[in-house]
Amino acid sequence: MIKNGLVLSMVSDSPDILKADIYIEGDKISKIGPNIPLEGVEKVIEAAGKVVMPGLVNCHNHAAMALLRGYSDDLRLMDWLSQKIWPAEDKMNGQDIYCGTMLAAAEMIKSGTTTFADMYAFMNRVAEAVQDSGMRASLCQGLTFLDERGQKRIEYTYRLFENWHGRAGGRITAMIGPHAPYTVPPDKMKLVVDLAIELNAAVHIHLAETSEEVDQIFKKYGKSPTKYLADLGLFDSCRVLLAHAVHLTGDDISIIKNIQGGVSHNPVSNMKLGCGVAPVVELRKAGITVGLGTDGAGSASTLDMFQEIKTAAWMQKNRFFDPTALTAYDVLRMATAEGAKVLGLDSEIGTLEAGKKADIIIIDIQKPHLYPHNDLCSLLAYSASGSDVETAIINGKIVMENRVLLSINEKEVLKKSGECARKMIEAYRDYH
Amino acid sequence: MIKNGLVLSMVSDSPDILKADIYIEGDKISKIGPNIPLEGVEKVIEAAGKVVMPGLVNCHNHAAMALLRGYSDDLRLMDWLSQKIWPAEDKMNGQDIYCGTMLAAAEMIKSGTTTFADMYAFMNRVAEAVQDSGMRASLCQGLTFLDERGQKRIEYTYRLFENWHGRAGGRITAMIGPHAPYTVPPDKMKLVVDLAIELNAAVHIHLAETSEEVDQIFKKYGKSPTKYLADLGLFDSCRVLLAHAVHLTGDDISIIKNIQGGVSHNPVSNMKLGCGVAPVVELRKAGITVGLGTDGAGSASTLDMFQEIKTAAWMQKNRFFDPTALTAYDVLRMATAEGAKVLGLDSEIGTLEAGKKADIIIIDIQKPHLYPHNDLCSLLAYSASGSDVETAIINGKIVMENRVLLSINEKEVLKKSGECARKMIEAYRDYH
Repeated sequence: MIKNGLVLSMVSDSPDILKADIYIEGDKISKIGPNIPLEGVEKVIEAAGKVVMPGLVNCHNHAAMALLRGYSDDLRLMDWLSQKIWPAEDKMNGQDIYCGTMLAAAEMIKSGTTTFADMYAFMNRVAEAVQDSGMRASLCQGLTFLDERGQKRIEYTYRLFENWHGRAGGRITAMIGPHAPYTVPPDKMKLVVDLAIELNAAVHIHLAETSEEVDQIFKKYGKSPTKYLADLGLFDSCRVLLAHAVHLTGDDISIIKNIQGGVSHNPVSNMKLGCGVAPVVELRKAGITVGLGTDGAGSASTLDMFQEIKTAAWMQKNRFFDPTALTAYDVLRMATAEGAKVLGLDSEIGTLEAGKKADIIIIDIQKPHLYPHNDLCSLLAYSASGSDVETAIINGKIVMENRVLLSINEKEVLKKSGECARKMIEAYRDYH
Repeated sequence: MIKNGLVLSMVSDSPDILKADIYIEGDKISKIGPNIPLEGVEKVIEAAGKVVMPGLVNCHNHAAMALLRGYSDDLRLMDWLSQKIWPAEDKMNGQDIYCGTMLAAAEMIKSGTTTFADMYAFMNRVAEAVQDSGMRASLCQGLTFLDERGQKRIEYTYRLFENWHGRAGGRITAMIGPHAPYTVPPDKMKLVVDLAIELNAAVHIHLAETSEEVDQIFKKYGKSPTKYLADLGLFDSCRVLLAHAVHLTGDDISIIKNIQGGVSHNPVSNMKLGCGVAPVVELRKAGITVGLGTDGAGSASTLDMFQEIKTAAWMQKNRFFDPTALTAYDVLRMATAEGAKVLGLDSEIGTLEAGKKADIIIIDIQKPHLYPHNDLCSLLAYSASGSDVETAIINGKIVMENRVLLSINEKEVLKKSGECARKMIEAYRDYH
């Protein structure tokens, strides 16, 4: 039972803050309202003067890349990949992936994220880390077909579905992960669509992240990356999660306006890699659901969704020279209810309502940078950071209380992640 | 004495990290090096595995606006000012200004800022708050001449110099604060230049923050705001602090390339108000010193300089579609050594060197979002946030230790700032 919190349910289209208790039974919220009796309650969390809101949903991540945080900043994309990221990733084994995902999970929980979508390799080890950390996740094996291992990656996908879909108390969902239009040729993309139909699964794919991608696809196929995917039947048959969607034309937006699923907007990664500004306002106007994601910490440097929340708003405001372009509540919805919808999990998470899973965060607002309390949504969107999250609950289980992780041995994870980095990266120094 | 820290001195043009001790005597750093003997040392701060770096310099603030944080977001600039900010500011008295500045000081210290430049009203009360909080500051009374109170504001400026310049143990510097080209007509700007010469003082002014300002000045005077100020002699005779400098032409940059002082770039405020992206790369190429500032929390929502550090880098990277445009170390230098130069305080602060004032922050990097330690400057610039600052020292005095403020009663300041907000703002609710 969470007592006396300022509950921001994120249910309606405009902010609604209610002083209320939340009663959790098993993995679900059973009641929300004032003065719920304490009888039979096992544990009480006092939340007076604190904000209680849905856990944040990170729609696009490569979690284990946390091991490469800060390793290759301030480089051009191709230098970044060829000189730094690929050689390091080549040395990663399953153990590294587990360790990197645990590091990412520790960071995500400590900054208020309770659900994430992940595309990477060794996804069985990622699933183990999700199981152990207590997080909720939608996982896919990244499928590229530029070398001879493409078929093997499809086999991994089958195994991921067999072994992990719906497991870990229902916290894990498997998806299919064709990497991007430029790494998946037409015949393979058709295969992916068939696979999605066969497994009744959603498809997670990078789309139009850079203008170079758009040029490349246009040169090769005479059409935009979006049209390329549409012509291969992706949007007719499958629920999709489109990551980035930076360089879209008006026609591209028309093509995807009726998709099931939605877009993951990743503002920090886009700015930091110098990719451009996604047409978030236009996507939302077209009725497309837009969630927020961090991308991997290798590029974004942080998995703090509060950073994405504020940056998403700033970018649209500055793009239109108009502070009304995207509001505080808009971006908070994108990080919660709309993110859940993008992942197809909106019947379970994304808002605080009786009957939904108990994925909840509690934020301490009795701090100088969160004072005075002129407007709670503005404070959360523009002034708060991940470190203000005090307590996190996932699937009814407390995974962090008063900033202490309960499902992860934080010290051990830090130590091991240093060891993994040391192995992968020459000249690594652990400053402990 | 700070023992065993990872000292990032910010002295050179490229990063230099040294495991060393720092010996502080009085208000100054007397020695930096390995294994300094502990004999006669009053207090030891153990900093093994922590970063020790210069306190951050916030070059542009309206500190007491912290009371208006979150009060008027997501509005167009003119609506923001006329419907919200001005009516609230009209109700502010000296007591409110003191309280708002203390709130801002609490936030600044807790996020690693040790020096700030401020332009606002009731500056004697701001100076008191600076004295009491232990911070270092360059203060000016905002001078506008759109009503009959212009002359009175000049008298305040004289009094500020008399009563506070060089006071509070040398921590306070007074400046002259003509608000902006569009609020200071030519005859008054000449008067300001004369005053600066008379008082041998630097001039802090907003410049070219919005395209509307540029249009307005061009319509009225047939020249750019920069040329307008140049023609009135501002850049010949005075050290200047130019805030914003967003909408500059190549000619404008040539005009200011030999100024004494520099520019305060305020990236978060610029994005959030939808003002545009300042030509930081071009300014630096022209040899102009560029520091970082937050602007007031009424617009920027936070006074966390780590936010400005990362946002400054992102904005230039994205502007040029080039991740090399501004590097991690560039923006860290802007927030420390270069900021100090903009304020004319570079002989005293901005780097860690024997003989300089002891303005130092210690950052805990043993956290998931700061692991592994692939590159310390990248971590500080792109992954750290203000809440990672553990200890802060200003003028040789510890003002925060292990996140506890020693010079400010934090609880009392929060309570009082709620009371001030309640008085100024109808419908204010304190969520305590």
